[in-house]
Amino acid sequence: MQRDRIKAGIIGVTGHTGEELLRILLRHRYVDITYLSSSTKEAFPVSAVYPWAKEELAIEPFDIEKAKECDCVFLALPHTVSMDYAEKILPGPKVIDLSADFRFKDASVYKKWYGKETNSELCERAVYGLPEVFAGDVMQADLIANPGCYPTAVLLGLFPLVKNGLFKECLIDAKSGASGAGRKINKQMMFVALAENLYPYKIDRHQHSPEMAGILGIEESSLVFIPHIVGIKRGILADIYVELAGRMNETRICGLYEDFYKGKPFVRIVKEPPKLSDVRNTNYCFIYIKSLSNGRILIVSAIDNIVKGASGQAIQNMNLLFNFPEEEGLL
Amino acid sequence: MQRDRIKAGIIGVTGHTGEELLRILLRHRYVDITYLSSSTKEAFPVSAVYPWAKEELAIEPFDIEKAKECDCVFLALPHTVSMDYAEKILPGPKVIDLSADFRFKDASVYKKWYGKETNSELCERAVYGLPEVFAGDVMQADLIANPGCYPTAVLLGLFPLVKNGLFKECLIDAKSGASGAGRKINKQMMFVALAENLYPYKIDRHQHSPEMAGILGIEESSLVFIPHIVGIKRGILADIYVELAGRMNETRICGLYEDFYKGKPFVRIVKEPPKLSDVRNTNYCFIYIKSLSNGRILIVSAIDNIVKGASGQAIQNMNLLFNFPEEEGLL
Amino acid sequence: MQRDRIKAGIIGVTGHTGEELLRILLRHRYVDITYLSSSTKEAFPVSAVYPWAKEELAIEPFDIEKAKECDCVFLALPHTVSMDYAEKILPGPKVIDLSADFRFKDASVYKKWYGKETNSELCERAVYGLPEVFAGDVMQADLIANPGCYPTAVLLGLFPLVKNGLFKECLIDAKSGASGAGRKINKQMMFVALAENLYPYKIDRHQHSPEMAGILGIEESSLVFIPHIVGIKRGILADIYVELAGRMNETRICGLYEDFYKGKPFVRIVKEPPKLSDVRNTNYCFIYIKSLSNGRILIVSAIDNIVKGASGQAIQNMNLLFNFPEEEGLL
Amino acid sequence: MQRDRIKAGIIGVTGHTGEELLRILLRHRYVDITYLSSSTKEAFPVSAVYPWAKEELAIEPFDIEKAKECDCVFLALPHTVSMDYAEKILPGPKVIDLSADFRFKDASVYKKWYGKETNSELCERAVYGLPEVFAGDVMQADLIANPGCYPTAVLLGLFPLVKNGLFKECLIDAKSGASGAGRKINKQMMFVALAENLYPYKIDRHQHSPEMAGILGIEESSLVFIPHIVGIKRGILADIYVELAGRMNETRICGLYEDFYKGKPFVRIVKEPPKLSDVRNTNYCFIYIKSLSNGRILIVSAIDNIVKGASGQAIQNMNLLFNFPEEEGLL
Repeated sequence: MQRDRIKAGIIGVTGHTGEELLRILLRHRYVDITYLSSSTKEAFPVSAVYPWAKEELAIEPFDIEKAKECDCVFLALPHTVSMDYAEKILPGPKVIDLSADFRFKDASVYKKWYGKETNSELCERAVYGLPEVFAGDVMQADLIANPGCYPTAVLLGLFPLVKNGLFKECLIDAKSGASGAGRKINKQMMFVALAENLYPYKIDRHQHSPEMAGILGIEESSLVFIPHIVGIKRGILADIYVELAGRMNETRICGLYEDFYKGKPFVRIVKEPPKLSDVRNTNYCFIYIKSLSNGRILIVSAIDNIVKGASGQAIQNMNLLFNFPEEEGLL
Repeated sequence: MQRDRIKAGIIGVTGHTGEELLRILLRHRYVDITYLSSSTKEAFPVSAVYPWAKEELAIEPFDIEKAKECDCVFLALPHTVSMDYAEKILPGPKVIDLSADFRFKDASVYKKWYGKETNSELCERAVYGLPEVFAGDVMQADLIANPGCYPTAVLLGLFPLVKNGLFKECLIDAKSGASGAGRKINKQMMFVALAENLYPYKIDRHQHSPEMAGILGIEESSLVFIPHIVGIKRGILADIYVELAGRMNETRICGLYEDFYKGKPFVRIVKEPPKLSDVRNTNYCFIYIKSLSNGRILIVSAIDNIVKGASGQAIQNMNLLFNFPEEEGLL
Repeated sequence: MQRDRIKAGIIGVTGHTGEELLRILLRHRYVDITYLSSSTKEAFPVSAVYPWAKEELAIEPFDIEKAKECDCVFLALPHTVSMDYAEKILPGPKVIDLSADFRFKDASVYKKWYGKETNSELCERAVYGLPEVFAGDVMQADLIANPGCYPTAVLLGLFPLVKNGLFKECLIDAKSGASGAGRKINKQMMFVALAENLYPYKIDRHQHSPEMAGILGIEESSLVFIPHIVGIKRGILADIYVELAGRMNETRICGLYEDFYKGKPFVRIVKEPPKLSDVRNTNYCFIYIKSLSNGRILIVSAIDNIVKGASGQAIQNMNLLFNFPEEEGLL
Repeated sequence: MQRDRIKAGIIGVTGHTGEELLRILLRHRYVDITYLSSSTKEAFPVSAVYPWAKEELAIEPFDIEKAKECDCVFLALPHTVSMDYAEKILPGPKVIDLSADFRFKDASVYKKWYGKETNSELCERAVYGLPEVFAGDVMQADLIANPGCYPTAVLLGLFPLVKNGLFKECLIDAKSGASGAGRKINKQMMFVALAENLYPYKIDRHQHSPEMAGILGIEESSLVFIPHIVGIKRGILADIYVELAGRMNETRICGLYEDFYKGKPFVRIVKEPPKLSDVRNTNYCFIYIKSLSNGRILIVSAIDNIVKGASGQAIQNMNLLFNFPEEEGLL
């Protein structure tokens, strides 16, 4: 089958997620990268920051005309900044936004956690880009709110229980590599501070808590989230300790997950506890399920935070939007 | 005050805990190291394995006469092996055993988890060497069962609640560096397998579960333990999610912990979540307490698994046994 | 252009290089993987060792018939073992051997360094698979001796000087990540031994010295090689300190390298000293050239030891053998 | 023997070297820490930055009176800043300066590399604090210029050759962990940028080159220095490739080194190539000597950059200044 090629642009290509978008798009068979932008004042060759990338590409200052000429624009920008670009670029190109700016239907929740008024109209229009759950909506959208990294791991781990009415409450002990914090320089993210280190942070007050509760449609108080930073580069492993609404044994729960993710190429229900190395540099989410001796269920969910937790998932959404094979560029 | 010096020996000096015992004893002001032993067939200078160590010391094959001449013998040997040495060496020297062989009062529990009959008489006589709780008994003992690494972190995190009747049940998500697994070579502990990696193992079936429940005097089922291995060298951080038997706010719980550990030089109740870097290479246990929005209490306990979780604590026990200052050699 | 697909097999798929071959072949557009083998006694699904791989593939015991049915067989086996397989499989399929068994034209040199008689006839027939230098021969071959990891970095760094008669002698201070040592378990490659560590080994007596001198056609004594192991997973950086046979300034040398590698997609002459991160997970070799104040020339050459230093280069050779685009599967 | 205790202060205690000075002084038997200072505006407890440190100590704004009351003041400050403090504090206390400000007898060299006029009079008065070579002068000094980290490793590796007239020229390929760069935040020192990375920098133009040549009393052009940064926290390993002025075999050179360092507790001539792990967290310098097949001599010198390369050596100098045992606090 002959496919039409599309023109894609990345706004904010010099961050971690912008870099990974570039890597993936360079090997995507149906995409021409026509526009790369960063907060630079003058254009420079992409190889100056990414020596492995094609030399003919340039990174340019933002130019609304060039963005408008793309079929699909990725916004790999900081929260609260991204919305201004989406407003300018829409309508026309499809926009896939990797920030939190359009992830909340309730504008007051966004304001509380991110400190700025969001664009309610665009929020209303945006589709939350978790393809394993919202593929139908994604295919119709022109604005995708790409999920946060922790939410991707947690939501994929919890949706089958929530959708089947089995979820009562949970406690999430999540561990993330350092790339989750982005490229902004700060003291705690220095090599000497973080190498060989591990600690919890934002205990029970991380901005991804309301995102997860909002998308699952559960009470915020039924989900307690304790993230940890670990001195490794990439990967998220979330241990989700669930109290079920009813009783169900491990085998039946596994069956229920198998059914829920049937035909979804990037989610695997696994028989051994996943390791970060299993999913590193891949778009997979590995999910492991175990009944604990206290009656709780442990769901272990592992992803690569930059791929499935950000840029890989963004490409997966693009593939759905343009009717490309869901796995194109992602294997 | 003039103190009598003692003669100390280490059996099994070539493992991680043996190495750390040697490091500490070399700077201890009241100890002469008179005997080092390993499973070697011929004596060799200690500097062949530890280039930083004093050259005049030798590592020798085991010789019961030489062990008997010590005032204090440390057994840094594998589980199930250690008991044979303790039987031979006692009575005479004080014996501090770093294995699990004498940690269980119930011999059937030991048998179940370690697969061998233990010496019931010695188990009866042994004192569990957690000085912050059992200092009185430690000072009278001639055989110390030095606690496991995970149990040290968890027990210090839970004893104040248990002793005050506030403990109902808990779930422990613990993270450990690789040195906890010792120096036995195996595929999963190879550098390439473990670097940048993280995963849970022995979920709800780790041999330290019954040790912790036994020492706390609680039901095994009230303590669910999920350990993780992390691609870092040293340190344990345990997140202990506790359901209280009653209600008590964070401030009062902190006060209760402060009281419990008053005058204990190596336990600190801290105001910020501890990092592994805070306790690395120290004999400290840092404990942080936080009320969660679901009513549970989070206790975060951090130690260096080789120091407070093994060899440092063994020296702390030795200091108590011989009436040396508790912190000697450990600052 | 419509291309014929080929059938490929990997013997020894459970090692590091076998794993990387599998990764690359899975995304190669013109290859069907028809046979995977290891030293197992019974077949098992590939996902048991590589959870990210296609579930329908199996890893089977060696079977000469199945190997013979491939168009191209990769031998990812230990040195001295590989030759036996090549003897059986040839003629018929093209064989690309990642071991050292066919890299030496002088059988006595092989014997001296690897301790076994090699097959002289096959050695004679084998082509050394460094495509940037020997592409013409590679395209005609049916047995490829894929270069060692250090030799790849060093040869690409030295060939332009040697071919232009400018090489007199050199000293090579090379640094390699741990994956170069393969998956055999041993004490020095344990995580705790290697993390945060760095040291030289096999100083001036590494088996890659004669390989490099032999291929360059220079005296062994004119190349002194000091390898170092570093506590990182992947990558080789070689600092090559060269004494020139004549005088030539930096700019002209750079020009000479640019000419030598014109049209070679995987070698880049770079303007800033390369970092391992520049080439990680890529098939690139980055080369940097600098005149030193003592008149020597420093050539810094960086590769990913598993990709360009082994499996990526093997695929590059396969692409040449079957007239596929040289970069297919490797971007 | 009863010793007089001294009062010590650290100016700049919040950097890496200030931290290590604090660690060592806390266990030093003859020192009372009476003053800790940083660029803070208000005093705060030391445990706020170093949770393991004694809680009663405070870190205060700089106060010349308090500094003057010390017997010994350590300046752990940035280059070009340190000199201003030394000028104010002297005379009175002994001053041990860890910056480069007083390491050059030739003020124009300092100006060229550090961009500021130094205080020539103080430079003249300062003694270069490499105790294995200049112990006699150190004991008489009131201002010590503590050596740089690379120079410590290299000078200890070269002095025996230079002093015996055997040195002709050398090429130094040095590798350093990240802590050498200090705690200033910058993009290249971020965890994600540096983990698993390795690369050369400031090739043949590092500011430690003139320091080394100046102290050795050799031509700058006879010493070519190529430093590398490695994604590990601590340690320097320098491979020094020497061309001798005459001929001498390995054994005799080793003997010459043994003689030169006889009675020096912190230098060891070792029989196997040293590893960073051999010297980590110690004040040792391990030196290994090997004749290469091209007639050059390889000297491998390994230190912990923060201990022997900075703070440990500073304490060693203090021990000499106050007639304490040279190893006090450093074992």
